[in-house]
Parts: sequence; structure tokens; C-alpha cells
Amino acid sequence: MRVAIVGATGAVGQEFLRLLDERNFPITTLRLYASERSAGKKISYKGQEISLEVLPEDGNLDVDIAFSSAGGSISKADAWQWAEHGAVVIDNTSAWRMDERVPLVVPEINGEAALENNGIIANPNCSTIIALMALAPLHKEFGLKRAIVDTYQAVSGAGAAGFAELESQTKAALAGEAIEAKKFQHPIAFNLFSHDSEIDETGYNFEERKLLHESRKILAAPDLKISATCVRVPVYRAHTEAIHAEFERAVTVDEVHEVLASAEGIQIIDDRENNTFPMPLAASNQDDCFVGRIREDSSLAGGIALFVSGDQIRKGAALNAVQIGEYLIDQNYFKKLVVK
Amino acid sequence: MRVAIVGATGAVGQEFLRLLDERNFPITTLRLYASERSAGKKISYKGQEISLEVLPEDGNLDVDIAFSSAGGSISKADAWQWAEHGAVVIDNTSAWRMDERVPLVVPEINGEAALENNGIIANPNCSTIIALMALAPLHKEFGLKRAIVDTYQAVSGAGAAGFAELESQTKAALAGEAIEAKKFQHPIAFNLFSHDSEIDETGYNFEERKLLHESRKILAAPDLKISATCVRVPVYRAHTEAIHAEFERAVTVDEVHEVLASAEGIQIIDDRENNTFPMPLAASNQDDCFVGRIREDSSLAGGIALFVSGDQIRKGAALNAVQIGEYLIDQNYFKKLVVK
Repeated sequence: MRVAIVGATGAVGQEFLRLLDERNFPITTLRLYASERSAGKKISYKGQEISLEVLPEDGNLDVDIAFSSAGGSISKADAWQWAEHGAVVIDNTSAWRMDERVPLVVPEINGEAALENNGIIANPNCSTIIALMALAPLHKEFGLKRAIVDTYQAVSGAGAAGFAELESQTKAALAGEAIEAKKFQHPIAFNLFSHDSEIDETGYNFEERKLLHESRKILAAPDLKISATCVRVPVYRAHTEAIHAEFERAVTVDEVHEVLASAEGIQIIDDRENNTFPMPLAASNQDDCFVGRIREDSSLAGGIALFVSGDQIRKGAALNAVQIGEYLIDQNYFKKLVVK
Repeated sequence: MRVAIVGATGAVGQEFLRLLDERNFPITTLRLYASERSAGKKISYKGQEISLEVLPEDGNLDVDIAFSSAGGSISKADAWQWAEHGAVVIDNTSAWRMDERVPLVVPEINGEAALENNGIIANPNCSTIIALMALAPLHKEFGLKRAIVDTYQAVSGAGAAGFAELESQTKAALAGEAIEAKKFQHPIAFNLFSHDSEIDETGYNFEERKLLHESRKILAAPDLKISATCVRVPVYRAHTEAIHAEFERAVTVDEVHEVLASAEGIQIIDDRENNTFPMPLAASNQDDCFVGRIREDSSLAGGIALFVSGDQIRKGAALNAVQIGEYLIDQNYFKKLVVK
């Protein structure tokens, strides 16, 4: 496969490189696109030095698959052009997720939707993917009606600058120095704040609305009800979520264990005796999402409470996108294209 | 008033001293009790040097009010003895909170219950107080039926050792050194974990069960349903909570604003345009609890979602206890005792 990474120098772009290498993605040519600032610099991939290029004016990336993570405005402007020139664009921005022409895909949940693409496949929002890794298998079995999702989100969701800000502010705070806020509006060191995305007239921020609307699209459940409170916490790279779920029928803890134990891409960490459950430090750099604290909701007979943690950059972004690419290859999607 | 602080060297004990001074609590004699290790050391209060004493064998604290924060096992063993010798014990441990003989009091909510004490008045759990500062006024007006409460709890809940652990681990992590876990079982630096209290057969930990049972007792609402997920986050001294509440009738955001705007002890911080809401750093060292993100629950018509933050050591512990003492004085409780 001829593969491009658009936004190769970002936190997610760098993760794409690690994952393509680690998973031996079948690459014949790798093209790395970045901003003008980085053009000409080189990045090493499997022993080869690859020059960073600026995006071509005509939109011809000259690849079969483009993993795009260069920001919503670039995807918004250019992604259909890349697709017209023959690339299947797996887009990690929010630009096209809710567009009817674009499938929104988590391979373990609705991989088959990726096959019906029109040139762009959208990678869902990180906190949505991590919530659904636990909720989708339960939805399939029991019919999810309503979920409350309160998040503990890592700074990696704001890219490399988020990382840097947590580190520099924490150092300053420990030294008793003034904290400088650049990436985030509010201090993140030893603090937390309601997610820094735009709030609409309902009072929900964009991250919370994504959790609702993207979940409905991925699960093909237009009536699903979700209320989320999305919060940034001083953690580097894994998101954690407290979930309270209500299903079409009363569900037992044993049933949930049984379903989740055989679900792909998740591990149950639920050791009540040793008080050991999903934690972001343990979930960091892991491919699987962790699920635990599985208990009957004390406020709703037959409801279930859960606690999940997943690496925001891996399953929440780059890994899920690479898995979409792998799914297409496994399903002979590209060979069928050639035959057509 | 002759006043004692039992556990004077702890994080809450130290806060008692600051608050009694700051609020000019009417003290004639102040006795400071601590462990044998600290006995004989001196603490300064309003220019006076006061020697730390060990608890008397006979249980006679020789005071009118004892603010107790020396740990549950000491309260469990000795508090009734202190009371028998004439002290009104305002106990900040979990030892007697659910005892039928003991009122559980937040002065703004059920102050009058303090007057009917039998010698011990219990100070509720910190996360319960902070949740109820927002929920109780709404309950009074609309009848609270069910609440989901997911917490973001500061390390101060584990006392001075919790503070020290967050600081030392964070320094070690930044220096790339191994993290040493002493106070908490799991790393707290750049991490978070499900609350480190014992888990029962329902799967809920003790902190979560307190939120349910103490809320029912304080609000005199035995059928109230609460499901909580309590989580420790790398924040020093204010707890934050995401709350989703359901009432006897559908409630509007405007109604909630109206009720909370006139409630005592809380401030509404709800600036959607500037994305500014309650944050633990802003709530630290404040007497009031902050409430914001007031919105209709997107998963339940007429339900309400909220975000609250309050200082765990102040309103969550020492301040609430001092306010109970002030309430008793205001209500001439001690004069009436003399008359009896």
C-alpha cells in the first residue's frame, strides 16, 4: 500500500508512525505531509529517512490510504480532493464525522461501514471510542437506552502542546513560580476544568455533544440518550470515564462480565479485593481499553455502572485509524477497487 | 466557650486552628490534643503558645465543645466518654455518622438537627457535604429522586500524608525517577484511581456508600437513590463532582439558577461564553462551594446536570464543623444547657 500521514509531526502523527512500524503495516511507499515550517526535515521510518513534504496544491497525495490528523480546518478544506485523487482518507479530525456521506468507524463495532465509504472514513472522537469499546458489546446484547458518561480526560487530547503545558506548569507550581497558560485557558497543573471546547445553547460543550451524536451514528441507535460531563485532568495520555448505563431490560453484573470477557479490544480489570481497577497510567501505551468497577447501579435496579480507561492517542486516535486501514486490507477492499 | 481540638496536628486539625482564629470563635480556653509523639510541643494561637496534650485517661476533656478529627478508631473508642464529661463532640470522622443517636449536620441544610444531640454531632463526609450544598436547596424545592455523582477528589481527603505523596511523586515523575507509593496503593502523580476505600459485595466503595447513606440521613429522604463513582485525582485540596439529578417533577435551568442564587454557602460560576466553571484550584481555601455547568440533562427531559467544586478541608471538614459550633452558640444551646 502507498500510505500518507497528513500531519506527521503532531502527537497523533508520531503515533501513526510508531504503529505502522510496530504492526508491520504493508507499506510500499510512505509519504509524510506536514506544515511548511517542517518541510524538508526528515523522519526515520524502518531505517529509511523520509523527507517531510508540504501538501500538494492539486490535492493529489499519490497514495492509496491517507491517515489524516492535521486539524479540522485542513481536512474540511482538502479531504475530498485527496479522495478524488484516489486516496481513501481515514480522517482523525471532527470535520466529516457527522456527514452522511462519511462512515464513522470503530472496527470492532461497525467495521463493515468502512467498506461503504465515498473516499473518506472518519475516525471517531477519542472519548467516544473509549466509551463505546465497553458500551457497544453491551448494546448489541442488551440494547443501550441511556448512559451518563463523566470523563477524566488526558491533556494529550490537545496534542503535543497539551503535554508540554502540563509538564511546564507542574514544574512551575512545584517551584512556587507563577503558572503560564498558553495552550489551555485555565491552569492544568494540580487542577482540572470543564473541557475547553465551545459550549452551545444547551449548555453542553462540543466534546460532550460528540459523545452523544457520534455514539448514535456508530451504534446506529438514533434514539440513544447520553448525558456527558467532559473534564480535563492533569494526566498525560489516557482518558478515563465513569459510565452509568441503562438497557432495554434489567441486566446483571454476571451478564456484563460474560459479554465483556469475550469482546475484542478490551480487558477487564476488576479486582475488588485489591482495589485495582482501570487507571490511566496503566492504560497508557496499551492497545486495549480497560474496563472495571462493574456493578449494579445503586440508583437503578438492572442498571450498570462501569469505569473505563484507554490510551487517548492509541485506541482513541491513531490505533483506531490504523485498524480501519487493516480492516480494509483484510476485506480485500483495495483489490476489489482494482477489479472494478 | 472552652474548646478542644482533638487531632490538632493533622491537616483538618490545623484548619480548625486557622478557622477558629479567622472567625473569632468565642474561646476562653483552647486545649489541643494530639498523639504522644507530639505531646509537649507547642502551637501558637492568637499570640499564645499552647502545649499539645495527650488525651486524658478518664475522658474528661474539660471543655464545652470538642472538635474531633483524630481518626475513626479514636472517636469510636472515646467520643461518648468525652460527651459524658460535658463536651459537645463535633466529630469529623465516619465513626458515628450513621448512628441513630447522632445527628449528621450541615448547618445550611439541617442545622436544627444539631440541637437534638446526645453529646455527639457528626460532621458528614467531605464529598457528601459538597454534593449536598448544591443538591439540598434543589431537593427542598423540587424533591430529589435520583442522582448520579461522579467525583474528582483531592488528595487532602487522605490528610497531610496525601499532600506529601502527591508532591513527592510528582517531583520524582518529572525527574524520571521511580515513584514511591506510601500513603496510596496506586501512583497519584499524573494518574487517578478509584477511591482507595474498602469495597463491599455491591461493588461500591465506602466513600460511595457514604454519599448515598449520609445524603439520605441529612436530607431525611430515606428513598433517595444515588449512584456514585468516587475517584482520586492529582489535585491538592478541593473536591469536584459531576452531578446528574432527577426530581419529582421536570425542572428548568432557570428554576435551578433561581434557587441556587439565593442558597447559602454557594456561588454560581457558570460563564458559558468564557468557558469558566467551578475548578478545584479556584475553590481551594474558599468557604463557599462553587456550582456551575447548570444545564438540562440531555438524556432526561426535566433532569439537571451540574458541576460543583468545594474545598475539602474547609467546607468538606473543618469549616462545616466550626459552623455547627457557631450554630449551637447562635441558638443559645449552651445557655439553655446551663438553665436546665
